[in-house]
Amino acid sequence: MRMNSMCRAVMVFAAGIAIAAETAGQTAKPAQASGNGSLLADLVVANRILSNENILDGLGHVSARSVQRPDHFFMARDLAPGLVTAADLVEYDLDGNAVDPKAPTGVRERFIHAAILKARRDVNSVVHSHMPSVLPFTDSTVPLRPMYHMAPFLLAGVPVWEIRTVPGQVGMLVDNNKAGASLAQTLGNRTVALMRGHGAVIVGVTVPDAVSNAIFLDVNARVQAQAIALGGKVTYLTQADVEAGAVSPQPPAPIGTPGYYPRSWGIWKQKAMGEKR
Amino acid sequence: MRMNSMCRAVMVFAAGIAIAAETAGQTAKPAQASGNGSLLADLVVANRILSNENILDGLGHVSARSVQRPDHFFMARDLAPGLVTAADLVEYDLDGNAVDPKAPTGVRERFIHAAILKARRDVNSVVHSHMPSVLPFTDSTVPLRPMYHMAPFLLAGVPVWEIRTVPGQVGMLVDNNKAGASLAQTLGNRTVALMRGHGAVIVGVTVPDAVSNAIFLDVNARVQAQAIALGGKVTYLTQADVEAGAVSPQPPAPIGTPGYYPRSWGIWKQKAMGEKR
Amino acid sequence: MRMNSMCRAVMVFAAGIAIAAETAGQTAKPAQASGNGSLLADLVVANRILSNENILDGLGHVSARSVQRPDHFFMARDLAPGLVTAADLVEYDLDGNAVDPKAPTGVRERFIHAAILKARRDVNSVVHSHMPSVLPFTDSTVPLRPMYHMAPFLLAGVPVWEIRTVPGQVGMLVDNNKAGASLAQTLGNRTVALMRGHGAVIVGVTVPDAVSNAIFLDVNARVQAQAIALGGKVTYLTQADVEAGAVSPQPPAPIGTPGYYPRSWGIWKQKAMGEKR
Amino acid sequence: MRMNSMCRAVMVFAAGIAIAAETAGQTAKPAQASGNGSLLADLVVANRILSNENILDGLGHVSARSVQRPDHFFMARDLAPGLVTAADLVEYDLDGNAVDPKAPTGVRERFIHAAILKARRDVNSVVHSHMPSVLPFTDSTVPLRPMYHMAPFLLAGVPVWEIRTVPGQVGMLVDNNKAGASLAQTLGNRTVALMRGHGAVIVGVTVPDAVSNAIFLDVNARVQAQAIALGGKVTYLTQADVEAGAVSPQPPAPIGTPGYYPRSWGIWKQKAMGEKR
Repeated sequence: MRMNSMCRAVMVFAAGIAIAAETAGQTAKPAQASGNGSLLADLVVANRILSNENILDGLGHVSARSVQRPDHFFMARDLAPGLVTAADLVEYDLDGNAVDPKAPTGVRERFIHAAILKARRDVNSVVHSHMPSVLPFTDSTVPLRPMYHMAPFLLAGVPVWEIRTVPGQVGMLVDNNKAGASLAQTLGNRTVALMRGHGAVIVGVTVPDAVSNAIFLDVNARVQAQAIALGGKVTYLTQADVEAGAVSPQPPAPIGTPGYYPRSWGIWKQKAMGEKR
Repeated sequence: MRMNSMCRAVMVFAAGIAIAAETAGQTAKPAQASGNGSLLADLVVANRILSNENILDGLGHVSARSVQRPDHFFMARDLAPGLVTAADLVEYDLDGNAVDPKAPTGVRERFIHAAILKARRDVNSVVHSHMPSVLPFTDSTVPLRPMYHMAPFLLAGVPVWEIRTVPGQVGMLVDNNKAGASLAQTLGNRTVALMRGHGAVIVGVTVPDAVSNAIFLDVNARVQAQAIALGGKVTYLTQADVEAGAVSPQPPAPIGTPGYYPRSWGIWKQKAMGEKR
Repeated sequence: MRMNSMCRAVMVFAAGIAIAAETAGQTAKPAQASGNGSLLADLVVANRILSNENILDGLGHVSARSVQRPDHFFMARDLAPGLVTAADLVEYDLDGNAVDPKAPTGVRERFIHAAILKARRDVNSVVHSHMPSVLPFTDSTVPLRPMYHMAPFLLAGVPVWEIRTVPGQVGMLVDNNKAGASLAQTLGNRTVALMRGHGAVIVGVTVPDAVSNAIFLDVNARVQAQAIALGGKVTYLTQADVEAGAVSPQPPAPIGTPGYYPRSWGIWKQKAMGEKR
Repeated sequence: MRMNSMCRAVMVFAAGIAIAAETAGQTAKPAQASGNGSLLADLVVANRILSNENILDGLGHVSARSVQRPDHFFMARDLAPGLVTAADLVEYDLDGNAVDPKAPTGVRERFIHAAILKARRDVNSVVHSHMPSVLPFTDSTVPLRPMYHMAPFLLAGVPVWEIRTVPGQVGMLVDNNKAGASLAQTLGNRTVALMRGHGAVIVGVTVPDAVSNAIFLDVNARVQAQAIALGGKVTYLTQADVEAGAVSPQPPAPIGTPGYYPRSWGIWKQKAMGEKR
């Protein structure tokens, strides 16, 4: 518990990759590292998957750091994720300003993405969700904890961010850089932070990684709630369950790699888009 | 708590608009204020959305105040919401009488809509639902409370109306103006009232607003039930969370505006009708 | 409570009709009373609806008393309800014998239907379901009780039948007339009886009535479980809520009438069959 | 309780067949016993059904013992079950080695299947699932118990396997024969074993039998959780409920028989594949 939190986060992160890599076998293929083509295609698919899997309602969003300009990122204009196409993607800088001054109206809460992508150079994709499974934990003193092997990214803890601690902040929306920076600070080196009475942010090394984390977070939250309701003693996943996997020599995949979970991505995409990956 | 309830309701209402407007960015476009064309189109879509999202079963209903005759309103004839087309809409006065004496058979509970639209000039659309998520709260001493930023309309409280308090009322259906007026009185200036052992009424400034409120009420009820089941202390949304937003200078959109939540409306419509808005 | 149970059942039944008739307005049209044509068409649709609404899994069943031979009934051969067509319907006598000795293999548990249709001349349709919402109540000391106005048929009580009380009975299946008669006796004049560790039987005056009762039973069970989980005091529907409605002069519809709930039937049918009624 | 566990398992197994056979009537038709044609076709359908019924996410798997080489088995390459076709099936020996050295990359956890098929000659199909209904029981001291007549295969008990008891094991995945053998030993002669913080293994005499057991396990877990939440006393299925059925003279069907539950298989297949069986 006294371990440096950065160090622990890296371990957990590495453990996550190790598990994912084992699960995925050898079918993951790195995307071309130059150019944003596959990244933007993945971002469109991510919007559709997250809508189809009920992780994003009409109001949530997902972003991706630019491959060519790591100080820029892409996210859809102010549109429901389930309706997003490539033409709806807008490029922003890390202060949340659209690169093109004639860009269509952006999402008011794009500062969530800007602030986290500014603070976390290891993160290349951010999801902001109001998923109903997680909302109860945003309002409860019961902490979200990892229930199974697909959620090792919760081992570092799941903080609940309180927007009322941001001086001068009005309302519940993260619609400015100061609120965004406060949220990013609460997130720290973790993968998930909850926002009290609002939802969650979930990050990933790639777009498919962030999508996977969001979907497995949803399963984990439902499983934890049900396990508590059974009334017995609950055993949570521990660092010991995954740390041995952390010695895996496999490095993180390069930015733009389409997912550590290609098996899942394939079926999620087919269900959302009607096509195989 | 000693604040005038009308005043509080207006504040909450304004806060709701502010949040919605922020969320929606600038994509909301006011519909033509004259003529009921877009209103009736929205009402058909509202029927289909509420059916597709499982807010209305075969027996619930949604109404819209006439733009040209604010003392009239429209709702579908006695037909399941999921099957409603424009040809099924009937025009009523605020006593629940069909304007056209040869109109097809109406819904027996149209008096819910007539009475609320008569009592609430700020309301232009009413939903009556038996949604399973809310039904437990109609039979419980546990009050429905706002869990997240999409349900600020619950801050004014959610009363439970008891039909047995209506003198001479037989059965559970609001099939006369006296029962309707009693329900409208319990609703007061709020957005939602529960009906014991029956369901709920949800109102809005526009049809999409009422639809949104109904759908977010459904999410909120499920989230509250789950938060309670976690067994910890639950934190609810408070007036302080939204009142700062109430200073927003943005006025209410004119009657007929297709929704404060165009992002959500777009995806709900596409899922229900197979077309974008 | 000391009221004769037959009398109470009749009152409840009449109250149910009154509520249904109010809800349905005047759109219900009595089917032709002679001939089984519309009855068999309704029975096919009932199979598909109950499968599509997840009331029947691959193994449940629904039956209908013959209009022309009230001592006969129809049900599908040994086939999943979701796959049933008119060609799959088989005619049985009230001992469960196929009228046509060359009929295809029947459902082993057809004795449920035979025994109830023999004991209850007021019943013309029987559903046997393993619906997951009701199964917990078949294994619990907590009784199923009516939560809302669409479930007045539960006011007469919901007994739990124990198959181990049938002398000589082996296993859990009602595969003989003795077990069927025991179940029918437990059902008495009620609409629903649970079968411990197995499921439920639900009856109706018509096929759509039995379908409706089964679907609203499902909603009611989920609502009751959730209301209990909220932890407050729960108020149940009472006889007083519906008995005034029982003075309705409207008589029961003739056998073969396609439903007291035409609005619901229409949307259920469209969802199951892709066509309006 | 002092009865030999092998003996009890056989009784339970026989009881399960008896119930299933009763339920199925006489429509089950044994597949051709020679050749793997129908077996492989069933295995493809099993992949699709288990995906469509949400028993398998993108990462679970199902296997089938070869008819011609009982020391070999088939399972899909490293691909989401919902996307599997006949071309994706790979043949393995009981140590988890692909028969064809040029076979595509296999599932890392194929050792689950190899080890169980090696230890259990009566088993011809294995499912490994992360179904959310069962996950809470993998982390809880509350044991899974049979709730209804479709889950007699749980009467022998449902052990929870702890991977941390395997010497030298790293991580949570069963990616070697030693871990597989340990899991198979915990399973013993039972039908289901849970894996702490991971999921479950479910076995069957045929592919449809394993599929059925997995699906009814899912229902049973949800029903048990809900029955506990009702707060009353819960009655579980007992040996006495099924043992009389065990005297059924009907022998186990030959290997390759397409299911003891042809009624269920038919509708599951139609929903997953768009075709009747």
